[in-house]
Amino acid sequence: MTLGLGSISAHRLLRRLLHISPPLSLAGLYAGFILLGGLCFKLPGAMLGELSWSDAFFTAASAVTVTGLSVVDAGTQFNLLGEAVLLVLIQLGGLGLMTFAVLVLAALKVPVGLTGQIYLSEELNQSSMHRLMRLVKRIFQVVLVCELAGAALLATSFVPMLGLGRGLWVSLFHAVSAFNNAGFSTFSDGLVPLAADPIINIVIPALFIVGGVGYVVIDDVIRNRRWGRFSLHTKIMLSGSTILIFWGWGAFAALEWHNPGTLGQFDGAPLRLMVAWFQGVTPRTAGFNTVEMAEMHDSTALMVISLMLIGAGPTSTAGGIKVTTFVVMCLATVAFFQRRTQLNAFGRSIGLHEVLKVMALTAISVIVVFVGVFLLAATQEGHFLDVSFEVASAFGTVGLSRGFTGELTDPGRAVIVAIMFIGRVGPLTLGYFLATRSVPRVRYPEGRIHLG
Amino acid sequence: MTLGLGSISAHRLLRRLLHISPPLSLAGLYAGFILLGGLCFKLPGAMLGELSWSDAFFTAASAVTVTGLSVVDAGTQFNLLGEAVLLVLIQLGGLGLMTFAVLVLAALKVPVGLTGQIYLSEELNQSSMHRLMRLVKRIFQVVLVCELAGAALLATSFVPMLGLGRGLWVSLFHAVSAFNNAGFSTFSDGLVPLAADPIINIVIPALFIVGGVGYVVIDDVIRNRRWGRFSLHTKIMLSGSTILIFWGWGAFAALEWHNPGTLGQFDGAPLRLMVAWFQGVTPRTAGFNTVEMAEMHDSTALMVISLMLIGAGPTSTAGGIKVTTFVVMCLATVAFFQRRTQLNAFGRSIGLHEVLKVMALTAISVIVVFVGVFLLAATQEGHFLDVSFEVASAFGTVGLSRGFTGELTDPGRAVIVAIMFIGRVGPLTLGYFLATRSVPRVRYPEGRIHLG
Ligand SMILES: [K+]
Ligand SMILES: [K+]
Repeated sequence: MTLGLGSISAHRLLRRLLHISPPLSLAGLYAGFILLGGLCFKLPGAMLGELSWSDAFFTAASAVTVTGLSVVDAGTQFNLLGEAVLLVLIQLGGLGLMTFAVLVLAALKVPVGLTGQIYLSEELNQSSMHRLMRLVKRIFQVVLVCELAGAALLATSFVPMLGLGRGLWVSLFHAVSAFNNAGFSTFSDGLVPLAADPIINIVIPALFIVGGVGYVVIDDVIRNRRWGRFSLHTKIMLSGSTILIFWGWGAFAALEWHNPGTLGQFDGAPLRLMVAWFQGVTPRTAGFNTVEMAEMHDSTALMVISLMLIGAGPTSTAGGIKVTTFVVMCLATVAFFQRRTQLNAFGRSIGLHEVLKVMALTAISVIVVFVGVFLLAATQEGHFLDVSFEVASAFGTVGLSRGFTGELTDPGRAVIVAIMFIGRVGPLTLGYFLATRSVPRVRYPEGRIHLG
Repeated sequence: MTLGLGSISAHRLLRRLLHISPPLSLAGLYAGFILLGGLCFKLPGAMLGELSWSDAFFTAASAVTVTGLSVVDAGTQFNLLGEAVLLVLIQLGGLGLMTFAVLVLAALKVPVGLTGQIYLSEELNQSSMHRLMRLVKRIFQVVLVCELAGAALLATSFVPMLGLGRGLWVSLFHAVSAFNNAGFSTFSDGLVPLAADPIINIVIPALFIVGGVGYVVIDDVIRNRRWGRFSLHTKIMLSGSTILIFWGWGAFAALEWHNPGTLGQFDGAPLRLMVAWFQGVTPRTAGFNTVEMAEMHDSTALMVISLMLIGAGPTSTAGGIKVTTFVVMCLATVAFFQRRTQLNAFGRSIGLHEVLKVMALTAISVIVVFVGVFLLAATQEGHFLDVSFEVASAFGTVGLSRGFTGELTDPGRAVIVAIMFIGRVGPLTLGYFLATRSVPRVRYPEGRIHLG
């Protein structure tokens, strides 16, 4: 999309791109990858069965936004080439296009000038150029190490099951899909038949938790190693994520313990706790599931919806309003009832203008979700809970579904694609506003946290 | 409840009450009225049929919180005494107990001291004692004039239908019920059979719009008469309400125009527009309906839910987050995207600490609604949309229902009663925090608005 379009040189095109409004070109690049991906899926020989245009673009959008909602049966319709295209799209979408842009620029020996730096810093919420370049290197190290280690561990389960060649490929696919929180699987039933496999229950969640916590946090943890030295952002992300993980795990177990459609089918408390663990951590953006989402009670579904809307960390592969935004919202509420106008966390204060950002992010998110549910309800049949679940899943780029994805009409698919796109690009675009607004102003001695 | 409990004199009891935490005693008074109302409904001869304790207290809670959700058939189970008790509870709940407290104190010649003044000012968000006393007088004038005028106009429709005596009583009942946004009717089918009656379509909405805009606004309009002299609060309430009214009207008409269960049954555009008008204005707390809510499309139901959650004005008979809160939320979002940290409206600024209040109010509201839907979904069967609709209706003290009220089990009723109570008392309690927090601080030259 950005390279080698004939008459215009790649240099000039890239330079031009960097002079367009960054949020616009970010959105443009994502849209470009979706188009390219959709075209690839339509290539002769890319798939076992013929995909319709609508199927192809929906799948590409779901992959690039690392959502994982699917209208195509991965187990029967993808051949190896199709799976490879899917994997590349997931990796491109998950890594963040900005990381890519810098590499391309460096490879082309284009000087990474001021615009490019600002451009990149929006996606990563980083303002120092030095830290930025190290962060990009770190991203690639972490991604490579995690995905390869994950694939190696998964291979101990998949190779005996599928043979060496196929087993290794499937292991790599699931490692990449998990680390990027994409939720795509090569199996028709996803991971449901593997619900009781301990390797799956440890390696996959480990990958998507690390991938979802955000590169900034990973970098901070690797560099500083000790809690006392972590930034406010890292502390909030780590403690907030931990609480949400235990909350999701406990609530799922308590609500579904005796449901024969979900946990009730497994014998014994340890097994049920393990299956509940997987379902408790997956809603905050991963999107894999080992039990049928449609079999959950309505109350559990609502709990899962709330987790999907919260999502995981900024500068990660997650959608949703993000954990930090949620934490600031809670802190603001507590501060209000204690009649304070200052928010404090871990010995640092958070300015009131941060509350304004949180307010804006929340308002926009509520509007997007409301409008999404409204449009789906207005244009097609469907149980209200399933529709709400699907929209929350798309907005949080989660990919869990109560089976409504397959029932989507073409207008319905367009709505879901738009919401996935907003869920993935929207926060980044908001991040642009977050990042640039404070630049020309006075800097307060406050702890910085990321809200996008 | 507060008067004549034998050994302790009314004086001392009242003085004591005023020294308890105001939010606590406010909640206590409301709870007392609900208990008293429930007991009255159980009096021999108060009803035609026997009410269970659960029926009696649910009805009393619904009346005192001016919600209007009903588990009792008003048309067949209430006799005149029962209707009178209902009317008194509605009027008590609607007028605001604080207005009442001052009158009782004045009648008992208890000096209305500092505590009492602060106490009253919380409910009405007024800080000047002079304005306060005038406001209380104004409240009673406005209530009396509106309810009597409304009853007289409604009589032109009800007297020919029901005869002089019954017609006048029914007119008074509906006028009081409408002005206090209670939504109770003496008919089994509510106002559904009267959907095409022009008097009903003009008088009832006029009453509940005036009642829902808030006493402060009414007082400001009567005193100042000209837009330029109105306070920021009044301007925001009037313009916000107007926009929401036209939005609700237009959206309902557009979505339901051809639905044979709602607008489609009426012949001709003028009639359909009139019926749509009624349904478009009723969700923001009134609770009357002239078409079946269960027949609406899911998309329309979602639109109605959003209006119910917004509600009407502070210091009114409304529940929900209130129009001013919603407007500040919108202003904050716009300001954020324009990269301003100051909110402006009508040439006045709104401080960032107001955004903190809005954030807290919104967060609490979201939690209450989420927990309510969750508890109902967890404890009983029911379509998810109907459950969400019922909870939003209870939180906004609206009283519209898709027929789920009758299906509530006893735990379900307890949940709805709790949400109605929070919907009515919660914002007042929050109002206490809003009012007192800014008192000891520096006063900024800002326009004041009410958020509770
Ligand atoms: K996902
Ligand atoms: K009502």
